[in-house]
Amino acid sequence: MASSIVRGKYLISKVMSPTEATVIADGAVYQRDGEVVEIGTYADLAGRYSPDEVIGSPEHVIMPGLVNAHHHVGLTPFQLGSPDYPLELWLASRVAARDVDPYLDTLYSAFEMIESGVTTVQHLHSARRGPAPTWPKLADQVLRAYRDIGMRTSYAFGFRDQNRLVYGPDEEFVKGLPPDLAPDVSALLGGMAIDFDQYISSLFVDLYESWGRNRAERVRIWLAPTNLHWCSDKVLVAVKEYATRYRAGIHIHLLETVYQKLYAQRRFGVSAVRHLYDLGFLGPEVTLGHGVWLTEEDVELVARTGTCICHNPSSNLRLQSGIAPVNYFAERGVRVGLGIDEAGINDDRDMLQEMRLALKLHRVPGMGRAVPTSPQVLQMATQHGVHTTGFADRIGSLEPGKSADIVVMSLRNIAEPYLDAEVPIVDAVVHRGRSADVETVLIAGEVVMRDRHFTRVNKAEVLRELATSLKAPLRPDEVKRRELTRQLFPYVRRFYDGWIPPEGEPFYRQNQRG
Amino acid sequence: MASSIVRGKYLISKVMSPTEATVIADGAVYQRDGEVVEIGTYADLAGRYSPDEVIGSPEHVIMPGLVNAHHHVGLTPFQLGSPDYPLELWLASRVAARDVDPYLDTLYSAFEMIESGVTTVQHLHSARRGPAPTWPKLADQVLRAYRDIGMRTSYAFGFRDQNRLVYGPDEEFVKGLPPDLAPDVSALLGGMAIDFDQYISSLFVDLYESWGRNRAERVRIWLAPTNLHWCSDKVLVAVKEYATRYRAGIHIHLLETVYQKLYAQRRFGVSAVRHLYDLGFLGPEVTLGHGVWLTEEDVELVARTGTCICHNPSSNLRLQSGIAPVNYFAERGVRVGLGIDEAGINDDRDMLQEMRLALKLHRVPGMGRAVPTSPQVLQMATQHGVHTTGFADRIGSLEPGKSADIVVMSLRNIAEPYLDAEVPIVDAVVHRGRSADVETVLIAGEVVMRDRHFTRVNKAEVLRELATSLKAPLRPDEVKRRELTRQLFPYVRRFYDGWIPPEGEPFYRQNQRG
Repeated sequence: MASSIVRGKYLISKVMSPTEATVIADGAVYQRDGEVVEIGTYADLAGRYSPDEVIGSPEHVIMPGLVNAHHHVGLTPFQLGSPDYPLELWLASRVAARDVDPYLDTLYSAFEMIESGVTTVQHLHSARRGPAPTWPKLADQVLRAYRDIGMRTSYAFGFRDQNRLVYGPDEEFVKGLPPDLAPDVSALLGGMAIDFDQYISSLFVDLYESWGRNRAERVRIWLAPTNLHWCSDKVLVAVKEYATRYRAGIHIHLLETVYQKLYAQRRFGVSAVRHLYDLGFLGPEVTLGHGVWLTEEDVELVARTGTCICHNPSSNLRLQSGIAPVNYFAERGVRVGLGIDEAGINDDRDMLQEMRLALKLHRVPGMGRAVPTSPQVLQMATQHGVHTTGFADRIGSLEPGKSADIVVMSLRNIAEPYLDAEVPIVDAVVHRGRSADVETVLIAGEVVMRDRHFTRVNKAEVLRELATSLKAPLRPDEVKRRELTRQLFPYVRRFYDGWIPPEGEPFYRQNQRG
Repeated sequence: MASSIVRGKYLISKVMSPTEATVIADGAVYQRDGEVVEIGTYADLAGRYSPDEVIGSPEHVIMPGLVNAHHHVGLTPFQLGSPDYPLELWLASRVAARDVDPYLDTLYSAFEMIESGVTTVQHLHSARRGPAPTWPKLADQVLRAYRDIGMRTSYAFGFRDQNRLVYGPDEEFVKGLPPDLAPDVSALLGGMAIDFDQYISSLFVDLYESWGRNRAERVRIWLAPTNLHWCSDKVLVAVKEYATRYRAGIHIHLLETVYQKLYAQRRFGVSAVRHLYDLGFLGPEVTLGHGVWLTEEDVELVARTGTCICHNPSSNLRLQSGIAPVNYFAERGVRVGLGIDEAGINDDRDMLQEMRLALKLHRVPGMGRAVPTSPQVLQMATQHGVHTTGFADRIGSLEPGKSADIVVMSLRNIAEPYLDAEVPIVDAVVHRGRSADVETVLIAGEVVMRDRHFTRVNKAEVLRELATSLKAPLRPDEVKRRELTRQLFPYVRRFYDGWIPPEGEPFYRQNQRG
């Protein structure tokens, strides 16, 4: 480890309020051994410290590393042949996806994330297929990829033990299938089964032990009951106990679609959030992924318990989930992180693009309405987002004592050929900053990307290996799975016939029939 | 002029339906003197023709040039210091914007458009300030810029003669201002005045005569009564007559915000669309810009008259206008073009990004709901968009007899490191194609950008000149205007107090309070 001064025409240290950020003109960070020692003007710090190197220039803007608070895979479902469908159908279509090497796959999306300024990822590992005893090896490959590229990672393997194809019992669903289809679907589901104790021991405790017991600089191991419908209450309660015992956090997908809202009402007679609240599940260590269909009453419970929400705007548009009522979350003081999920609006992992979508998507008509500001969106991607990972107190701003996760962006595209002198720099970055402007990225003080070149991993070689690994034709089992998925699709679709969403008062009104 | 064969791994010729496009594998276009002579496989065409050059390769995809159906300026309002506000406030804030050389400014956005595959632009020229006798010179500078870079341009200068600061008479609004403010605002408005006959003669007929009488290959002169509230009925009727006499089209902003909907109801007692219908204004040569707040009944009138709509999704989000009910437009068979307006979601002019936003924004929850497909979005940007310009029968697809407006895109980012073989190429381009993938662009058979280099204009030099022209400090009149705008702002805001949008049934439901 070593020391450096990272300087820019502007240093964005921290968001203070929806309209204000702490910015130092001609500012710099002095970091030593991965920790921010001091921030100030470059002139002052350069006069008092003798760093090993100086990074940045007056043609750059410096800001805290970004947090992608909800991430799953490398190659996108679209690339692998699953078009965007409503979520429930899309999940069924993904059973067909061919296998990809988890190590190379993880590096692929890590490239895109770091290139867009992401230094911390909440990785939610979903094993789409069994057998379960192979899963710890997959987990290890993902974690090794992040370790090798140098990325800060909060990792959780997803647990599911019911309702795996539709929002109803697997056995009943399989029973309703034609006799020529049912046995294959049964076999597929059987291979996916994992016992909860086995999950905890091999995919939580073992990882926790072997990856630094949640005290390493760049790794945390979390828990992820994947969604309410996929877990029994017993499992949810047990997960909460393990989280408390190990001081780990929990990320659970919740109310991503209106069908999930209907499901919870049918199963419990109360809302999904109310049910989790009644179980004692909610709390500041818990993040709800998506939360599109929370009601006002749900948001109250979330706010009261200090639970976090992760907003995934691209994903919610792509899979016809809706638009999460982020304006109301903000009004009620809920901490909201920002996630790209499987892929952003451009079918890649571009955090600046995702921030921009979050910035513009919630601008509901009506003068005087509070809508997200640029500082608020930056806060979602930094100071709020960190609470949805295992690094809450370590990162999210550039201040003495924090880890030195730093993004160095060129001001060229942002400020040229012209930018009015009165535009605040946070506004300029959030409105105009592009992935291509991110030049250098430090994680825990280490330069992991310098002038767009990764320092630890050969990107071109990894992409070549990944491409080569996929050049082989589909294996017979992959061809069979694709055929099986095609046959299964209409039955999944049919399952939701008659699940009519009730038409209540929306949070957002963006057009009108009459 | 000359001949060329433009080839690709795929040639996208034409969209046939929401799920189908005519695509030729290993396809090519043979064009001579700017017109498509034949399309077919490359092997076939190369065997039968001897073109001056071959463009493209099996690593490219070839498609028709895109149409940006609603464009105004080069440097964006954001760059010039006007943050995104609700439209009515934003218009007021823009009075402060400093002056930019129209020639350089037009080239600036033309670079961005062509780089993202746009070959045809509907330029709606809004003079923000007077004096009006200087406006023909501005028009000429804009048209010369497009001529010099080689871009196909449908041009219309906007006309306004009332309600220029708020949705109410100028005189009454000025009367309500404090005495120290009123005279300056009056002076500002006075300088903006233009007589309708003067408008027609100097900004329509003169341009029509001097730019090829709407028969030149790359220029059309259109009419643009800027919005309903800005024009008297007399003007609207006269514009329609001129359009008919000169076989020109009309582009009118309409129902961009809910406040404009309320305004029309207050002024006429009927909807804005109904009023235009009653005036006999609607028709296939008319495009309504935005159309966010059309009702079901309005859409019926639009469909019945063959009127077009231009959808501007980024602009509508940025200025808190709402989301146009594009799904309902499609259901009723309305032709919808796509426009980037002043700037897209990333504060630039990226047509592929705008297409992607249009693709994802209308995915309202609910299985079985018809939402825009990739072919439909490509159709908006080509075959439908052309009807909102003066080139309807000349462009929009690659077929014999059409003008050779052709985009050559690299397949690298779209298809690497992997793309499932079953993904249709139109889906792949619309989901994953980026501005950076556009390598070469032909307009009327002429290569205007080759391997990202503009052939007729030195981009670096233009950007340098533009930057230099803006390096001077604000002139005293610019400083004064900025101060005036600041003082005026709260009065514009106050004007809309009590304009409460009624809460009717929305077209789109994307979340729910209870």
